[in-house]
Amino acid sequence: MTALWRRVVAEGIGTGLLVTVVIGSGIAAARMSPDDVGLQLLENAFATALGLAVLILMIGPVSGAHLNPVVSLVDWWLGRRNGGGLSARDVSAYVPAQVVGAILGAVLANLMYGEAAVSWSTKDRSAGHLWLGEVVATAGLVVLIFALAASNRAALAPAAVGAYIGSAYWFTSSTSFANPAVTIGRAFSDTFAGIAPASVPGFVISQLAGAAVGVGLLAVLYPSVHAVTTGASK
Amino acid sequence: MTALWRRVVAEGIGTGLLVTVVIGSGIAAARMSPDDVGLQLLENAFATALGLAVLILMIGPVSGAHLNPVVSLVDWWLGRRNGGGLSARDVSAYVPAQVVGAILGAVLANLMYGEAAVSWSTKDRSAGHLWLGEVVATAGLVVLIFALAASNRAALAPAAVGAYIGSAYWFTSSTSFANPAVTIGRAFSDTFAGIAPASVPGFVISQLAGAAVGVGLLAVLYPSVHAVTTGASK
Amino acid sequence: MTALWRRVVAEGIGTGLLVTVVIGSGIAAARMSPDDVGLQLLENAFATALGLAVLILMIGPVSGAHLNPVVSLVDWWLGRRNGGGLSARDVSAYVPAQVVGAILGAVLANLMYGEAAVSWSTKDRSAGHLWLGEVVATAGLVVLIFALAASNRAALAPAAVGAYIGSAYWFTSSTSFANPAVTIGRAFSDTFAGIAPASVPGFVISQLAGAAVGVGLLAVLYPSVHAVTTGASK
Amino acid sequence: MTALWRRVVAEGIGTGLLVTVVIGSGIAAARMSPDDVGLQLLENAFATALGLAVLILMIGPVSGAHLNPVVSLVDWWLGRRNGGGLSARDVSAYVPAQVVGAILGAVLANLMYGEAAVSWSTKDRSAGHLWLGEVVATAGLVVLIFALAASNRAALAPAAVGAYIGSAYWFTSSTSFANPAVTIGRAFSDTFAGIAPASVPGFVISQLAGAAVGVGLLAVLYPSVHAVTTGASK
Repeated sequence: MTALWRRVVAEGIGTGLLVTVVIGSGIAAARMSPDDVGLQLLENAFATALGLAVLILMIGPVSGAHLNPVVSLVDWWLGRRNGGGLSARDVSAYVPAQVVGAILGAVLANLMYGEAAVSWSTKDRSAGHLWLGEVVATAGLVVLIFALAASNRAALAPAAVGAYIGSAYWFTSSTSFANPAVTIGRAFSDTFAGIAPASVPGFVISQLAGAAVGVGLLAVLYPSVHAVTTGASK
Repeated sequence: MTALWRRVVAEGIGTGLLVTVVIGSGIAAARMSPDDVGLQLLENAFATALGLAVLILMIGPVSGAHLNPVVSLVDWWLGRRNGGGLSARDVSAYVPAQVVGAILGAVLANLMYGEAAVSWSTKDRSAGHLWLGEVVATAGLVVLIFALAASNRAALAPAAVGAYIGSAYWFTSSTSFANPAVTIGRAFSDTFAGIAPASVPGFVISQLAGAAVGVGLLAVLYPSVHAVTTGASK
Repeated sequence: MTALWRRVVAEGIGTGLLVTVVIGSGIAAARMSPDDVGLQLLENAFATALGLAVLILMIGPVSGAHLNPVVSLVDWWLGRRNGGGLSARDVSAYVPAQVVGAILGAVLANLMYGEAAVSWSTKDRSAGHLWLGEVVATAGLVVLIFALAASNRAALAPAAVGAYIGSAYWFTSSTSFANPAVTIGRAFSDTFAGIAPASVPGFVISQLAGAAVGVGLLAVLYPSVHAVTTGASK
Repeated sequence: MTALWRRVVAEGIGTGLLVTVVIGSGIAAARMSPDDVGLQLLENAFATALGLAVLILMIGPVSGAHLNPVVSLVDWWLGRRNGGGLSARDVSAYVPAQVVGAILGAVLANLMYGEAAVSWSTKDRSAGHLWLGEVVATAGLVVLIFALAASNRAALAPAAVGAYIGSAYWFTSSTSFANPAVTIGRAFSDTFAGIAPASVPGFVISQLAGAAVGVGLLAVLYPSVHAVTTGASK
């Protein structure tokens, strides 16, 4: 088992770069395709699907590449019941690292594109149908990751999770944030992928609700589902 | 073998989410790229290719991830001749679950995008060349799935089926529905991916004809072709 | 070894459907994205990359999925030197099947889109820089296929060849026909992907020259290169 | 171990064709989608992601498919510490071959598109935020390649590196050159993907800085990281 500090650094870097990919490609898309917001989202989804898959490949062997507090929490929850999984101490280190990394990733994207290091997003994303989108997006993500683990196909997770998010950008009305740390990070950039700080709590609550739905679906589909992290330090 | 009720629930959820992907991404595409219907279809195809691959990964180990009455019927048919395959009882449970799931998936997409829960599609899709498109689309799908099984490469089915449909959106004039349950579900949304109820029977009949063509082609190409489901409850 | 007649039918069906994918998606793209020829080519390339990969998966175990006279010829040539490969009799059956299949595939695409069954293309494609494009496109294709075989990675050929053609649509000035049978088939449709009959010989000659370049490059890079077909009927 | 001369030829051909892919698809994109520079970059990124993956597949078994002086240098550096890796003599042969190949690849792209064989780019790319983009792009590339090697997943490198660059075209402000040889080659074409000769040194210095950052990150994430080349001639 890799030392906890290395795993925490990995989660911070990985989540940070994920936000850099999301925000950076969003800035590029909005600047270069100003006349069609759909084309902007296609460019953003193309970059995110490929970039997320690569980041999971890069970080996976170190920390599991959760890059998402919801994934870490579900991993801990399923581990409590079935063995393995992150310990409570692990979770309490992973989640802050993910959030801090996400914020720094937003700053990096802003700086790479010559924007101010931080600019609060003014993009309001508060509406019932968007929250439903986040519930669906997060439930699907949780089912996917733990279904792959339950069927001994975790090696497919990088490509599968990248493909899932690339698709969910389109089929959920909320463009599938599905990640509380990334949601917070995206509040720090007043650009294409941003979210107004006031809209963050609604998204995060919806994501937690989606995670619960995902755990429920897993109980139906994969009664023997287990945590993805094995042999974690307890 | 997974209990039949779990498999049936899995087919319902999987087919439902497939319709959610198709309709949801179609709504997003039409709203965001209003000036170019080709770009809309590219966005729709991108989301569907990735989303379908992911759904098959997610549901496959539970029920086989047919997500399509035509696939379940051919599986039963080939199993009768060569062993394995769905039983008649399985088929009679799978198909209704696929249809009900598809309808609920359309409702979910409508609600996520703030549309009425149900709005009958007004998009007429009745023409000889479109029916030919569905014959081709469904025959190709059947050949692909059972060719992979016949050559012991079923593990490639998720990516291959997603790629096939993403391509067939473009090379068939009908945009490749290729699935009676999904066709029915798509009648419940008066949006980009919809089909007028009056056009549904023509599409379904063409799909069944395509399945027969596919079975015939398989007999030529893979004389030892067999069902994809093994050890099903009889 | 599969009976020759089945392999020949497979080559005909596979090459035919490849032309259906190329022409069909080209018609759809030109109709739906009339204002941007680049977007048309992106749609065409997306459909072809995915569709070609799927066709090789579908037909590969039957006939090797050459779907291209150049590949069959190089396979025979390398087999003469290093053993294995298609026999001369095989080649003399594969190539006509590929050409006939390609023509029928063009007819199928025309019919699916409500066009006349045959309409001679009026798209002139005669110029030195286009011929150079075909030399490059075909040489690269030959190197790729036999490099994978020489390094025992033939299982990657479906995805790799699809990706190669999807890329070469863009990086060669000729949009990478790279296939004499497909070139002939594309003369039968006066649509986006067509080629005027008078331009066919120049393309085919360039493709044969490209194959020779490819064989030369393989001798440098992979001195132990061998045919992809093993155990063919002699 | 393949003879050094074959490996050097392979690096030259591979790097050359990479530049042909980048510049050629850039010319096609700019000509065919003149109204939207974002669409041009999407076309360019689509072609590059697929083409780069294919080139690594094609050349990998011969030379390792570094196709990039930064990768060869890091391989030598890590090999000095942990064994394996390119020898100093290998590096001194690989790097010139990569640069010469890159220039010839630019010429080939120019000729395929009917441009003058050489035209110096006039596209200025000098700015602090672009240099930051190159540091990020190159650091990520180095971490990815050696992380895969350190975790015994080098077989995933072709797809992963292609996906990485396809994504980084979008998330870095500099469109991710990340390669000194390719940077030099791109100065030889006054087209979409070009870079003015005066901007080359700033990019190359940033890339070397990025490589150093990447090596530092690897030391944190993968303390047992090693060279990707094994058994090289010393």
